[in-house]
Amino acid sequence: MTDYRDRLRVKPGSKVRLKDVDPGYHGDGVTTADAAAMVAAYERQLELGQLKLYAESRRSLLIVLQGLDASGKDGVCRHVLDAFNPLGTTVSAFKQPTPAELAHDFLWRVHARAPGKGEVAVFNRSHYEDVLVVRVHGLVPRKVWSRRYEQINEFERQLGASGTTILKFFLYISKDEQLERFRDRLEDPRRNWKISLGDYEERSHWDEYIEAYEEALERCSTDDAPWYVIPSNRKWFRDLAVSQILCATLEDMDLRYPEPSVDLEEVRRQYHLAATGDGGRKKVKPGKGRPER
Amino acid sequence: MTDYRDRLRVKPGSKVRLKDVDPGYHGDGVTTADAAAMVAAYERQLELGQLKLYAESRRSLLIVLQGLDASGKDGVCRHVLDAFNPLGTTVSAFKQPTPAELAHDFLWRVHARAPGKGEVAVFNRSHYEDVLVVRVHGLVPRKVWSRRYEQINEFERQLGASGTTILKFFLYISKDEQLERFRDRLEDPRRNWKISLGDYEERSHWDEYIEAYEEALERCSTDDAPWYVIPSNRKWFRDLAVSQILCATLEDMDLRYPEPSVDLEEVRRQYHLAATGDGGRKKVKPGKGRPER
Repeated sequence: MTDYRDRLRVKPGSKVRLKDVDPGYHGDGVTTADAAAMVAAYERQLELGQLKLYAESRRSLLIVLQGLDASGKDGVCRHVLDAFNPLGTTVSAFKQPTPAELAHDFLWRVHARAPGKGEVAVFNRSHYEDVLVVRVHGLVPRKVWSRRYEQINEFERQLGASGTTILKFFLYISKDEQLERFRDRLEDPRRNWKISLGDYEERSHWDEYIEAYEEALERCSTDDAPWYVIPSNRKWFRDLAVSQILCATLEDMDLRYPEPSVDLEEVRRQYHLAATGDGGRKKVKPGKGRPER
Repeated sequence: MTDYRDRLRVKPGSKVRLKDVDPGYHGDGVTTADAAAMVAAYERQLELGQLKLYAESRRSLLIVLQGLDASGKDGVCRHVLDAFNPLGTTVSAFKQPTPAELAHDFLWRVHARAPGKGEVAVFNRSHYEDVLVVRVHGLVPRKVWSRRYEQINEFERQLGASGTTILKFFLYISKDEQLERFRDRLEDPRRNWKISLGDYEERSHWDEYIEAYEEALERCSTDDAPWYVIPSNRKWFRDLAVSQILCATLEDMDLRYPEPSVDLEEVRRQYHLAATGDGGRKKVKPGKGRPER
């Protein structure tokens, strides 16, 4: 089994050429049936890992999802990250900033949604938009956005230092695949409402977006907060790679349930063994007064 | 099939006597197998309903979960509310207030977590704690907490007027069932860390909590924001009742996908039919250059 964490990670300091990455890559000989079984197994691990993270309540996990429109950010939320208990997980979708958000520095609104101890936070789009859409459309001068790579690295380093493990996924689809997905949206009455001409118009900036992504991936993939380029033309492979990488990361965190804060034997003796009126009754077997149906 | 919305709702203005409610009630002849199938079907409906709510983006849903310790609030989050897409759903667990929260009025922290348009918000514990634990332990004078019922009603009425549908579930277990669940926690190494002596000590206030719940249910169950008393000794019945009530409520909201904002025919012609270099290729069938594996 390929280690996608190694295979798809952007090595710090390396050059990123998205032209050399095949967005249609789908593993080496993995079938969709294999993938479905593996994703299901990974999801059970993710569920367990998140429980321990929550129980431990000392560290946290931040998952950043980026990608062009229709690249599958929502799909990853629905199919992979759904494994996490909603209690203890927050998903923040960062859209066009509000006036209040624009009145602050670009990290302000994302900082507010960073995960607390024991929590998982998912950013569906993120502070990276401030070096992507903002750069492509010249929403601030180059002098301003070009400083942001280092500001982002500082910010992420600081989160890391306070116990947050960060993973960043770029869901990479081809321009043709995007058009196919727009077409599917057009042919599905339940998704017609999502269609906007703006999405089509953005396609004329495709190459500029790719260039902006390349620079962001290159300058902001660090040992503490790595970027992964996920070939995402095939949804099943995207889910497989993301879930495998997440599992490996959680495993490396070596999460453990904390020790109980009470003397279990004492609790057992004091509250459960006494046949007092305080509910200390014997456990009644199913079918004997405590039927399961 | 019993309509639990009708059966379990606290009728506005009616007297609540929890002694007359059987926390072990589990429907009229429903088997666990029936229930599992029904819950699965309801979950699919919930998933679809939430999608429409999100698409429509005009109204919102607020689900309040209350209950004594081990009554299953987390279980409902995990087993029922998990049907909602995490994107568009927030779960807020209100614990002991922080100093910043205590420096504000009791509705401040919950108001901040109210659902936006298109969103579902789940409150795991809520502003009701301010007439429950606060009352039982005398954390503020009676004069203060006794005013809160009306303040809560005003607050919920205001949310309702701005498009928020509110449902409130009291998960009702018996005192014996709680002790059983504490025992299960004691015997499960993965849950030992959760055990606190405080939970056992709270049992000595059981009757006061019941009394406080009765008054809250009585005074704050309104047509717009009804309380439901969910017999919860059996987890499967609890999930069945909650999911049925949620489905019926969403159905009554008559949610619909919005009309597309663009001329679909025009989009089809302009972007998908032209055989230009802009990705306007014919759809390639699986197995013909666009293999699924």
